Amino acid sequence: MRTVDLIEKKADGFELSKEEIEFIVNGYVAGDIPDYQMSAFMMAVRMMGMSAGETAILTLTMMNSGDTADLSSLPGVKLDKHSTGGVGDTTTLAVAPLVAACGGTVAKMSGRGLGHTGGTLDKLESIPGCSVEIEMDKFIDIVRENGVAVIGQSKNLVPADKMMYALRDVTATVRSIPLIASSIMSKKLASGADAIVLDVKTGTGAFMREKEEAFELAKLMVRIGRLMGRKVTALITDMNQPLGMAVGNALEVREAVELLSGKIPETDPLYEVCMLLGVHMLMLGGLAENEKDARSSLKAAIDSGEGLRRLQKMVELQGGDSSYLCLEKIDELLKVRQIIDLKAPKTGYIHSIEAEKIGTAAQMLGAGRAKKSDPIDPAVGLVMKVRSGDHVSLSDTLCTLYVNDETRLEEVKKLLLEAIEISPLAAEKKPMIYGIITEKDV
Amino acid sequence: MRTVDLIEKKADGFELSKEEIEFIVNGYVAGDIPDYQMSAFMMAVRMMGMSAGETAILTLTMMNSGDTADLSSLPGVKLDKHSTGGVGDTTTLAVAPLVAACGGTVAKMSGRGLGHTGGTLDKLESIPGCSVEIEMDKFIDIVRENGVAVIGQSKNLVPADKMMYALRDVTATVRSIPLIASSIMSKKLASGADAIVLDVKTGTGAFMREKEEAFELAKLMVRIGRLMGRKVTALITDMNQPLGMAVGNALEVREAVELLSGKIPETDPLYEVCMLLGVHMLMLGGLAENEKDARSSLKAAIDSGEGLRRLQKMVELQGGDSSYLCLEKIDELLKVRQIIDLKAPKTGYIHSIEAEKIGTAAQMLGAGRAKKSDPIDPAVGLVMKVRSGDHVSLSDTLCTLYVNDETRLEEVKKLLLEAIEISPLAAEKKPMIYGIITEKDV
Repeated sequence: MRTVDLIEKKADGFELSKEEIEFIVNGYVAGDIPDYQMSAFMMAVRMMGMSAGETAILTLTMMNSGDTADLSSLPGVKLDKHSTGGVGDTTTLAVAPLVAACGGTVAKMSGRGLGHTGGTLDKLESIPGCSVEIEMDKFIDIVRENGVAVIGQSKNLVPADKMMYALRDVTATVRSIPLIASSIMSKKLASGADAIVLDVKTGTGAFMREKEEAFELAKLMVRIGRLMGRKVTALITDMNQPLGMAVGNALEVREAVELLSGKIPETDPLYEVCMLLGVHMLMLGGLAENEKDARSSLKAAIDSGEGLRRLQKMVELQGGDSSYLCLEKIDELLKVRQIIDLKAPKTGYIHSIEAEKIGTAAQMLGAGRAKKSDPIDPAVGLVMKVRSGDHVSLSDTLCTLYVNDETRLEEVKKLLLEAIEISPLAAEKKPMIYGIITEKDV
Repeated sequence: MRTVDLIEKKADGFELSKEEIEFIVNGYVAGDIPDYQMSAFMMAVRMMGMSAGETAILTLTMMNSGDTADLSSLPGVKLDKHSTGGVGDTTTLAVAPLVAACGGTVAKMSGRGLGHTGGTLDKLESIPGCSVEIEMDKFIDIVRENGVAVIGQSKNLVPADKMMYALRDVTATVRSIPLIASSIMSKKLASGADAIVLDVKTGTGAFMREKEEAFELAKLMVRIGRLMGRKVTALITDMNQPLGMAVGNALEVREAVELLSGKIPETDPLYEVCMLLGVHMLMLGGLAENEKDARSSLKAAIDSGEGLRRLQKMVELQGGDSSYLCLEKIDELLKVRQIIDLKAPKTGYIHSIEAEKIGTAAQMLGAGRAKKSDPIDPAVGLVMKVRSGDHVSLSDTLCTLYVNDETRLEEVKKLLLEAIEISPLAAEKKPMIYGIITEKDV
């Protein structure tokens, strides 16, 4: 088998066999296939696509390129969730403890990476002492005891994805649905969960700008899951504005604590997406008959404070100081040099809030990384005070900035004012949830 | 400007600007852009194409990546020809001297490379003493004196093409009409000719299998020529069977000598293609008013022996022993250990002759290179005795093999019998010339 012939075959639009896909992926990981052939191959895949079968084989081959977690010693259905990434998405910190409180087993491994904020791992690390670098045995012990733990992926989890993603990032081959699906699913499957709820974001602040693409990705991932014998449900949710109000690491921990303390109204988008993720996790886990039952279980876990206790316990078992995780003390994590309100420059309706720009503003304040080596400031970020459709008067606060480093402050303010569009006409309200794809749909 | 954004732009199907194309090509040649980005870019080009304008800019940028020949000290219109490559194509050795005999100036630089036979340079080198590595000044002197010389391209002619071609070869990005056109035209333009006649081959033995693709390539190259202020005419000719009867280095020199000695009938495809190339070279050079005049000039150059004398003189001035270049002595270049006739295994019509397999058979006998470092045996090869449509009886000779190394002889015979299909029904005759594209057509 010659690599060049397989690239040609894909470029000509043909389907590759299991042996052919294995040859390419394993050859690349082994260093036998150079970057320049892999990048041409991935561009051919971007252009010609892959069938669901090919994508499943690619996913499996990638998954088997490194360690896979064995969660079989844990009881019940092992549950996981994954979001394709957006701004102000602190769902994991709220949903995972809630599901555990409802009897679920959530052994979650997260990836680090670039982003507007640092991701779940960095959010956890903003709590003093909390570690996400935990050995497998101890991780399983924590989950057994508490029903939930969230740690970083092992260094050798899906090395094929690490290599391929680094190459895709510089060769314009990121935007390929089969490559995105296999990247996500290989890591989820290697993480060992039996059932996974995916949150595929769509909108200006999401990777999938177009709803149709988001549906396609969602369906493909559910199909891959089924081909691999795992239960997968995918939500397609809106990311035209930040999901939660907080964009920052400790700020998002605070928002999760607020949600778990019953302080976020049921009409809030973050609340709604958390509920829906929780509902489908419980249903896949056999812990609820239907959506109604699941919802009331989750609500009870908020009302009783059991969800918050699970988060506190998890942080404690992961070495962190859980005393911060209550409404009374959480603000101590948010000590910054300046807290600044950004005022509305005119009266009108919030026509749109460009999530991506909001995220970039938070990143510029130090909440996220532009390069892998960039440090993160856990306390900084911003809290939105408005949502699309709201009416504001001149000088109302649009958002509050938590600032330590003022170097780029003016730039950040300018970007935020660009991101938040105020118009004389009320904007059309967009739905929060576009659809739900289950096994039955694919 | 970031390379990844330019790859993305092309992958999204947008047209690149002059600055963007220069950024990529010059960056790649300078070593600032790595192979893996260039291969992804070229795959995007293969998939999304390039406009004629983009291709012209690409061609110009590639051309300017190294030396360009200055032929301005030579009188008149400097003429060149180029074939996209086929089997048994010895046209250069016949046409170039004929055009010179008719008053044309043919300063031709050829490339070396892989192929079934070694190309024009290797054919010339099969003549004892004949050199193709000649300094520019001396090359121009020879052309001034004799009207024609054929040498190897300078090492630094279009380095961008050398680098890009080596990468395309291993990344399945060879089959891209804009990349093929820019590769050919950058070298032709860098070689300094004012007017170029291209022979774009199509058929089973050609790079362009499909006639439509050949027309597309031909039109694109003529258009590029016009955008660059050069006169270009392109023939689209058949390569479903070898053009000439000889496939081998000295064997093809003999066939050229036969043609220049008037020993090849006017109905022969090689004769016809040579004539047509010559006609259009003379017309572009302003040396003939119309096809009829050009044809009679060329015919006169054969009849008078002036064409053959120009070839002899050229070889002499390039250091070779021109005494071999006559019907009486040419066979001395063909001393091999064995001359073997391959017989027809049955009676019938020659339904088809797969040119590519014929070429591969000659290569296996030692006439061409599979790897750059492979040596070439100038004397070996084969001479076809039949053409498509001919009737053969059992044991008639299909072709004659000139063999020194018998190691792969049985394999060669088997391949030839596969290549030459004999059927009970007479095959439909294919035209030799499919079309002619001039400036007026694009």
